[in-house]
Amino acid sequence: MPTRHATSDRLLYAQSGGVTAVINATAAGVIEAARARGVPVYAARNGILGALREELIDTRKETRAAVAALRHTPGGAFGSCRYKLKSLEANRAEYERLIEVFRAHDIRWFLYNGGNDSADTALKISQLGKAMKYDIRCIGVPKTVDNDLAVTDCCPGFGSVAKYTAVSTLEASLDVASMASTSTKVFILEVMGRHAGWIAAAAGLAGDGADAPPHLILFPENVFDEAAFLAKVKATVERVGWCTVVASEGIRNAAGQFLADAGTRDAFGHVQLGGVAPTLAELVKGKLGYKVHWALPDYLQRSARHLASRVDAEQAYAVGKAAVDCALAGMNAVMPAIVRTSDAPYRWKIEPAPLAKIANHEKKLPKGFIRKDGFGITAAARRYLAPLIAGESAPPTKNGLPVYVQLKNVAVAKKLAPWPPG
Amino acid sequence: MPTRHATSDRLLYAQSGGVTAVINATAAGVIEAARARGVPVYAARNGILGALREELIDTRKETRAAVAALRHTPGGAFGSCRYKLKSLEANRAEYERLIEVFRAHDIRWFLYNGGNDSADTALKISQLGKAMKYDIRCIGVPKTVDNDLAVTDCCPGFGSVAKYTAVSTLEASLDVASMASTSTKVFILEVMGRHAGWIAAAAGLAGDGADAPPHLILFPENVFDEAAFLAKVKATVERVGWCTVVASEGIRNAAGQFLADAGTRDAFGHVQLGGVAPTLAELVKGKLGYKVHWALPDYLQRSARHLASRVDAEQAYAVGKAAVDCALAGMNAVMPAIVRTSDAPYRWKIEPAPLAKIANHEKKLPKGFIRKDGFGITAAARRYLAPLIAGESAPPTKNGLPVYVQLKNVAVAKKLAPWPPG
Repeated sequence: MPTRHATSDRLLYAQSGGVTAVINATAAGVIEAARARGVPVYAARNGILGALREELIDTRKETRAAVAALRHTPGGAFGSCRYKLKSLEANRAEYERLIEVFRAHDIRWFLYNGGNDSADTALKISQLGKAMKYDIRCIGVPKTVDNDLAVTDCCPGFGSVAKYTAVSTLEASLDVASMASTSTKVFILEVMGRHAGWIAAAAGLAGDGADAPPHLILFPENVFDEAAFLAKVKATVERVGWCTVVASEGIRNAAGQFLADAGTRDAFGHVQLGGVAPTLAELVKGKLGYKVHWALPDYLQRSARHLASRVDAEQAYAVGKAAVDCALAGMNAVMPAIVRTSDAPYRWKIEPAPLAKIANHEKKLPKGFIRKDGFGITAAARRYLAPLIAGESAPPTKNGLPVYVQLKNVAVAKKLAPWPPG
Repeated sequence: MPTRHATSDRLLYAQSGGVTAVINATAAGVIEAARARGVPVYAARNGILGALREELIDTRKETRAAVAALRHTPGGAFGSCRYKLKSLEANRAEYERLIEVFRAHDIRWFLYNGGNDSADTALKISQLGKAMKYDIRCIGVPKTVDNDLAVTDCCPGFGSVAKYTAVSTLEASLDVASMASTSTKVFILEVMGRHAGWIAAAAGLAGDGADAPPHLILFPENVFDEAAFLAKVKATVERVGWCTVVASEGIRNAAGQFLADAGTRDAFGHVQLGGVAPTLAELVKGKLGYKVHWALPDYLQRSARHLASRVDAEQAYAVGKAAVDCALAGMNAVMPAIVRTSDAPYRWKIEPAPLAKIANHEKKLPKGFIRKDGFGITAAARRYLAPLIAGESAPPTKNGLPVYVQLKNVAVAKKLAPWPPG
């Protein structure tokens, strides 16, 4: 049921946490849907910090073309941040400041676009209005490459990093296969995923069958077993001639230490620092004697808009639009979640879900998605993952480079004292 | 002037050295041109090793569609190798074996697709026919992501890794810019180029102007100056808010040591091993205190056919076709070189160049391509580089993944004793 609102009422949108290839598509969905309803949108500069600092951006100053171009521009167009609000008890002043800023700028709807922590923050803010006697509706908008949000079938941002990972695994494996007779025999790709192996699992889409790459996937859900790992690498090289390994950055040994920090020693007896990939590379080289190469794409994987999944880009836009619909319908403390209604053909819809069911839950890879030997994905995982990387969504290009938009980001005049108070 | 040849005469094609996103497009050019002329093509399995071991592949067994699909398939479809023939004096037996294999299979033309070392090998083989009384024409076919071959204006394979590097620099920079207020302030991308800074230079196409990324490029042509590097990073972060660095793997300190092996010590006093990027990251973190992320795409950069430059893919095909034309015209000891006739609009043609002018020369980045401060590229470099990344050449896709061909690679029956002799 739509609520009535004054024409001066505004909607505030903020991006939170690590950005993705498609978080700006969500911004486009928010702004276009709100414009269509005649509701002005402010954006917070650098996420919740902008709301606290009263650093607001007036998106009305952006052209229709610029907003549309957000649909194919990676990164966070208004800036994002890693900043977790403390609990209401621990830092009530922060929440009071937020309400003060909302009140000063007639913010009636707050859309917070992020992952687990952001859902928690959105939930807290949604409960604030009553206590502070200010009518604010707060909607969480899903975003995370980690794909670890509860309730929603998948998270915008994940499909594109999944596609990047699968395509990179496939392409690098063709390279290694060509050279293995005299050069590199083992290739290790390190991917994101500190706690959940969703991205690593997506590499499994690169091939199917015992001899197809990736030959080993290392999941953070499993304890790293050095002997089993080395035995499998050796058997693969002996059978196939080469071996591709995809390792989640978050894998740990039996003592619970991250492998990247586990004190592995190099040939000189020095502690080997850095990522999981170089650690595994040293291990394979030292114990098996194979020539090894490794790659660590880091931010490249989550910003590769040139290789975005069309499904992901569409869902990112759709959750932004749906969040506006929820807000203007008077909902509070919900998140538009993606509901899968069919695997093949892939069908999905969006339904609001209570933030209380999402905040502070972490969705790990189901046990049924990891193969019994621990080094690959199951048919069930393929059924789940395959639709999420489907379809191309290439950005426009000029002179061989994608054309990404740079917004004007015109600041709204401040009305309040600086924050934090001097 | 075309030479007459017997209908039993065959052409042998071999891929050499590190593979690229488009070396198979050259293979397609060779096979399609030879088929059009009625000349059977054999391919050597794993480069020159296949020729020595008499491991030959009959490309007549491949369908027209499979050969056409090579135009968009990365890696080396017949296998490549890192194997440098010794000099004729040092290992005459190897050359005699090659001629023996050529004679046994009526190989009259040998096309060797590779970089500097391969040009040298091709040159040696081209001179062999007379000495060994066997009529063989040998043509070098250019290929190297390093872009360091003399005479030819550019090298097939380079344009695509250049495009990958520029696009990745642009995309990752948008990510870093979004997060810099509370998170990563410096991002370091390590790219290939042990001796020449062509790939690092291509990153410069991502932006133009003092505040546009990449803010620093580190070239192997320059001595790494730690103080100047740190000062520039600091000034950039203070002015722009963040900083993107692109570092060639081959940068060295004043003592001539590769930075990656220069014994940089981490916070615990341990030698830091691994690539240049983690070494620089430790340096920035330790000396400036900024949060740093780094990426090392390794093989991903040279196998990323999904992001190939159309110009590069076209040139790769064209040199393959031209090599067949040269061979069947009776030429020997030449390489089809790319000749640039105009920067803008970009125009090029192919002309045979003597292998003697190419073998064992290494084309470094001209001094006029590196900015005076040493950390960026000049307008002249932009004029040279820009056309090489132009145009898209997306492979066909299915279920969200590129469709890459896997050849049948049917072996030709052996006629000779094994090699090396037992």
